[in-house]
Amino acid sequence: MKNTKKNAFYAQSGGVTSVINASACGVIESARKNKKFIHKLYAGKNGILGALNQELIDTSYESKAAVENLKYTPGGIFGSCRYKLEDFKKNSKDYEKLLKVFIAHNIGYFFYNGGGDSQDTTNKISQFCSSKGFDIKCIGIPKTVDNDLPLIDTSPGFGSVGKYTAISTLEAGLDVASMCETSTKVFILEVMGRHAGWIAASSALASKSRNDPPHIILFPEVVFDEKKFLKNVKDIVSKEGYCVIVASEGTKNKKGKFLAESGTKDAFGHAQLGGVAPYLSELIKLKKGYKCHWAVADYLQRSARHIASSTDVEQAYALGSHAVDLAVDGKNGVMVSIKRISDKPYKWKLTTVPLQKVANVEKKMPKNYISSDGYHITNLCRRYMEPLIKGEDFPKYKDGIPIYTHFKNKKVKKIKI
Amino acid sequence: MKNTKKNAFYAQSGGVTSVINASACGVIESARKNKKFIHKLYAGKNGILGALNQELIDTSYESKAAVENLKYTPGGIFGSCRYKLEDFKKNSKDYEKLLKVFIAHNIGYFFYNGGGDSQDTTNKISQFCSSKGFDIKCIGIPKTVDNDLPLIDTSPGFGSVGKYTAISTLEAGLDVASMCETSTKVFILEVMGRHAGWIAASSALASKSRNDPPHIILFPEVVFDEKKFLKNVKDIVSKEGYCVIVASEGTKNKKGKFLAESGTKDAFGHAQLGGVAPYLSELIKLKKGYKCHWAVADYLQRSARHIASSTDVEQAYALGSHAVDLAVDGKNGVMVSIKRISDKPYKWKLTTVPLQKVANVEKKMPKNYISSDGYHITNLCRRYMEPLIKGEDFPKYKDGIPIYTHFKNKKVKKIKI
Repeated sequence: MKNTKKNAFYAQSGGVTSVINASACGVIESARKNKKFIHKLYAGKNGILGALNQELIDTSYESKAAVENLKYTPGGIFGSCRYKLEDFKKNSKDYEKLLKVFIAHNIGYFFYNGGGDSQDTTNKISQFCSSKGFDIKCIGIPKTVDNDLPLIDTSPGFGSVGKYTAISTLEAGLDVASMCETSTKVFILEVMGRHAGWIAASSALASKSRNDPPHIILFPEVVFDEKKFLKNVKDIVSKEGYCVIVASEGTKNKKGKFLAESGTKDAFGHAQLGGVAPYLSELIKLKKGYKCHWAVADYLQRSARHIASSTDVEQAYALGSHAVDLAVDGKNGVMVSIKRISDKPYKWKLTTVPLQKVANVEKKMPKNYISSDGYHITNLCRRYMEPLIKGEDFPKYKDGIPIYTHFKNKKVKKIKI
Repeated sequence: MKNTKKNAFYAQSGGVTSVINASACGVIESARKNKKFIHKLYAGKNGILGALNQELIDTSYESKAAVENLKYTPGGIFGSCRYKLEDFKKNSKDYEKLLKVFIAHNIGYFFYNGGGDSQDTTNKISQFCSSKGFDIKCIGIPKTVDNDLPLIDTSPGFGSVGKYTAISTLEAGLDVASMCETSTKVFILEVMGRHAGWIAASSALASKSRNDPPHIILFPEVVFDEKKFLKNVKDIVSKEGYCVIVASEGTKNKKGKFLAESGTKDAFGHAQLGGVAPYLSELIKLKKGYKCHWAVADYLQRSARHIASSTDVEQAYALGSHAVDLAVDGKNGVMVSIKRISDKPYKWKLTTVPLQKVANVEKKMPKNYISSDGYHITNLCRRYMEPLIKGEDFPKYKDGIPIYTHFKNKKVKKIKI
């Protein structure tokens, strides 16, 4: 234990989730418990940019109650960013800048809360600092709604978006079922997942059998076959009276092109990007004549803290808290992770994985998680996913609206470097 | 009291809501309490079509627990329909058919649960039956997420969709705020409301000031002025760093044309209907260059029972229950309604209004509910709306998913007529 009484730096990175602040809460509360080792916990304003621009937030000004309520608040309380550091062997400018800031503010601990890219960034920073002989403990805290991080049972954020997707599918399915006799026959819900179909897959948790919504799930992992798809829609409408489809935004055709980019022209004559749901809706109307409705959940899905999974919240918090404990114990260059011990009951433990093993690896849906016709999940997938959406962790409400926390986000005085 | 021991007929009509089943629950439970007057309560399979096609469901087979849980279940448990009866003075075919079914099944009470059109239908049926000397008590039970029914404080279904919209705006707003430095600057949420902006207006309940999301609300009642709108978006992004827009699907341009129909061509070269959010997104990207994201809530908003307003649920249930009490008391040709007694605390009472006063009247947003710049609500509107989204009435959960009820929906044997 060399790093006595140093400051710590925490930052949020990439697309936020409804529970990334639960991880932040874990980090802050654990840092406060570890006052012997951590003097102040600073947070980056807008992720790593906060360090690069020396925009540090002093978290010590936040009250205990505000920090506690952070666990219930979606979004990224300190601001997040999409910013990829280059390889420092090619261009070390950013790294030199970071190092100066870390030195100036006596940073001995670095916690980076993000997805695959961010783990890569954490790894590079750890390596660079080490190459410069600067003693800093760098720990990655995982996060991504996409569930595509390797070497972890599930990525914090996924369980909650999965719960949102399953419930939305269940509820909209009941709506369509009641109206299908004289109105909408096909409903399409578009969900996130550019490269991996985990979120779309989670909609299946709403169903007990293939006769229940969602009747068809479209995964990025399965090539979209228009003819087969339309036949399927028709068969389901004939049998059930209606058809509910959940489509990943990343669904691709045989040419490897996103359906959402398949030639739609906007009102201004430009190729329109985005919208696999409206695309499918037009396709079905045109080819089969069914009345269709569609929804695009977009940010609603990943910010729906009001319906977060308590399993997810608990894991997000525990990972944040654990990261701090490990850092003060001298761990470096690892991502805190979750190892599943059993499915039923769901048991898991905290663990670590080396950052270099996580960086730039994408976990797609395994083949044996997708049903043989390509339109649903297998029981194996269900067994994996079911525990992840379990439990409710409702925020407190006032006047019908959740009470989400407010932070002062007081900036640390810049030091001339 | 003439109608001793007759059967009753209840049907759900038009677009369903997350609380129309709470009204159904009120009807069933009240009918069971009024066994002295009501022998059996039948429900129409798919609304009034159930009567026309003699597809009646015998609700007496449903368990007490299943009926109780109906209060928590979205969609329309018996199926709904979009079917408008002609004026019986012009074409009485449907009415003759209905009368035959009512006589055959000894129906003495008719409850129709729907919006403006359905109240019109109830009125016509009441008049027709009366003109034929058939003694039946016809009571309308209001419902519509659009909140556009006249002579009622609020339409059941609206409070819950309002709560959903406010919470979704709040949550997505926190998401965008955290990402805006390096990613999305503008987020657009499209909500229902073809002719009235009540749902879009409810998003304002997420905000405490004009600096909070939603920054801009687009109402069908306010003509869309592209230049002014784009300037506003730019000003807000410059000031706040990001801009959250909530747009009614019914937003129209100066020519009175829906923005959603303003010339977008789909992938198949056809004019594309629907999607004011993607339209606005393309407009802003093209004219201002901001990165935009958009969501279309569609059916998710009106089926989101998991986040229903308890005020709304309570009113929906009370109206259903009250309708039955009134009918066995001999009332006829009225819609059960809600009269507001006070805003703070919100107090209301059950009342009735003559059906002919409700039929075909649409309640739009009053001018003094919309801010002078046309992009937000006034304090008067806020005062009206705030109580409607108050209170939570969570369903029970199992394995992370709400337990929604299951009905047997056992059909009554058809009688040759």
